[in-house]
Amino acid sequence: MKRLLDSDSLRALAKGCAVLGAGGGGDSYRGLLQALQATEDHGPVPLVDLDELPEDDLIMPCGAIGAPTVSIEKIENGDEGGRLRKHLEDLTDRRVAALMPAEIGGSNGLIPIAWAARMGLPLADADGMGRAFPEVPMVTMHLAGIAPSPAVMTDERGNLIVFRTISGHWMERLERAAAVEFGGNACSTEYSLTVAQARTATVRGSVSLAIRIGRSVMVADDNPVTALIAEISAVRLVTGKVSDVERRTTAGFARGSVLVEGLGDDAGRLIRLELQNENLVALERGTVLASVPDLISVLDSETADAIGTERVRYGQRVTVVAFGCDPVWRTPGGLAVAGPRAFGYDFDYVPVEELAGVTA
Amino acid sequence: MKRLLDSDSLRALAKGCAVLGAGGGGDSYRGLLQALQATEDHGPVPLVDLDELPEDDLIMPCGAIGAPTVSIEKIENGDEGGRLRKHLEDLTDRRVAALMPAEIGGSNGLIPIAWAARMGLPLADADGMGRAFPEVPMVTMHLAGIAPSPAVMTDERGNLIVFRTISGHWMERLERAAAVEFGGNACSTEYSLTVAQARTATVRGSVSLAIRIGRSVMVADDNPVTALIAEISAVRLVTGKVSDVERRTTAGFARGSVLVEGLGDDAGRLIRLELQNENLVALERGTVLASVPDLISVLDSETADAIGTERVRYGQRVTVVAFGCDPVWRTPGGLAVAGPRAFGYDFDYVPVEELAGVTA
Repeated sequence: MKRLLDSDSLRALAKGCAVLGAGGGGDSYRGLLQALQATEDHGPVPLVDLDELPEDDLIMPCGAIGAPTVSIEKIENGDEGGRLRKHLEDLTDRRVAALMPAEIGGSNGLIPIAWAARMGLPLADADGMGRAFPEVPMVTMHLAGIAPSPAVMTDERGNLIVFRTISGHWMERLERAAAVEFGGNACSTEYSLTVAQARTATVRGSVSLAIRIGRSVMVADDNPVTALIAEISAVRLVTGKVSDVERRTTAGFARGSVLVEGLGDDAGRLIRLELQNENLVALERGTVLASVPDLISVLDSETADAIGTERVRYGQRVTVVAFGCDPVWRTPGGLAVAGPRAFGYDFDYVPVEELAGVTA
Repeated sequence: MKRLLDSDSLRALAKGCAVLGAGGGGDSYRGLLQALQATEDHGPVPLVDLDELPEDDLIMPCGAIGAPTVSIEKIENGDEGGRLRKHLEDLTDRRVAALMPAEIGGSNGLIPIAWAARMGLPLADADGMGRAFPEVPMVTMHLAGIAPSPAVMTDERGNLIVFRTISGHWMERLERAAAVEFGGNACSTEYSLTVAQARTATVRGSVSLAIRIGRSVMVADDNPVTALIAEISAVRLVTGKVSDVERRTTAGFARGSVLVEGLGDDAGRLIRLELQNENLVALERGTVLASVPDLISVLDSETADAIGTERVRYGQRVTVVAFGCDPVWRTPGGLAVAGPRAFGYDFDYVPVEELAGVTA
């Protein structure tokens, strides 16, 4: 069921990646421009299911690592993916059959397409998160026991680093430090795995899902936000105005918080989002409305375009929605890696649909 | 002219490495303990001249990288050298014929011996500086046009990183950031080269020189400082007391300054040493008495033991000496890499013997 990612698909994909980014993964618009340009120059990239690929070949999860506030103006030059692939193949003695977004969220759902186009490789219809998360080991491959090593990192200048670490934690520490040194972001591949492993160790169909999400917005007649909420079975947390943004780029992350003041039916409400590249939690008067690993996305109330944490700003009219993550993140193992406590919060995870029932 | 580095040689070597460290390279005493233990466990290491080794084999320059203030209490576990060698051989498809201290100064002149003993490899009678310098590209191999890549770095936990950078500058940035992440120091090899290249691209005979320097102190009858000054043709800058130390461990370096107040004939004088791992400059009332790339060492006035920048402290009775660096550092290329301006000082280098003539 191979299909080509033409420019229409890419435009839909970009919208879907922005929604699935939960605020992170990097600006999907610049990722779209890169994917469109590479597709124009080298032809469209085939989107393939993992079942169609030879099981001993390699899947290369890849993307950018760093702060989305930096990546918005520090752009890849396009060669990075080729370097990552060459070194990964040399290190593993295996052929890369397809690239895969390490995370489907934001520009990281699109950059692998720009690289795949240049290499004539397909894109696997899967990713390692089903969303975007800020840290390296927050991937389903980690949950499945796949090793993060050998990881390869490169920058637009041509520097290249191979990491072989004793844990995902150390991979995160060392790659983050290198990303900071590179100026705040870089490109990398970690947790490479065989096609056979990828069939059970990834979130499958997430590229198609992102395209479907984007299409639902593009074909909506008059109320794209409502159409999107229906498509992803989201909970609407608030509709209002961004009344404050506190954001700093520090230690390779964008961190801070966003205040959304309710308007209309929501007048008088004040929702606070806390962020580390992605929106981590939504709070109202100290009550958790939604939290990682569930997805919290800030939508433009008019267009339903999801707004990344690097672009959110005072005065924007927004609708904040939350929706359920891939079920793997709701397992004890998933919550240990990407639940609220993994981010330093002192509360237990409750699925957003339950919270919505409670607070409704 | 192979000779075995027995415990007597190692003790002399440690004293010589401390002097050649110019304050840096790490505490030579803990390096001595590591070399003695490894020698006791695995037998003594042969010291070989580069002319005795097969010219296509590899010389592995190696040692610790980071802040000496950290390395004094964060010790290698002994396996690091073996990992560096294995990966370097795999990456280059060449056999390592001998280890070589990247810098002969401080514990970095001794740690490679501890590793060589475990591997049954000889130590090349050479190094990459003829002293210690704080930054990765400050090696004679860099001056000779040898590439810093592939470099390998590892820590005592077993993490391993391979760096392929576009310049020595980037190697320094990335390795330093990783060393900081590892806790302030780590082990590495950069600028590996063939024996044939090493014959012209290193400071030759520096291990023997360090042993000779150490012996001159050990056999001195009543005034080891005088004996040492004669052995290395040093200029005595001041004899006095350490009256202030300002030292901070920051971004992978020990930085700060040391004040030495003259005593006896030097009463009333105040000498200021500025340091970045090593002693960089010696100043008196704003006048430069000595500067990089020449060596400035702080000696215990009683024993002539050189005191590292991580151990210098208030009240120590010291004699500060300076002596000429290897001639390669006095070339325009050498000064561009390791002269005063390379460390941010706004003055030109003048050889210490000329400065001594002027200020005498």
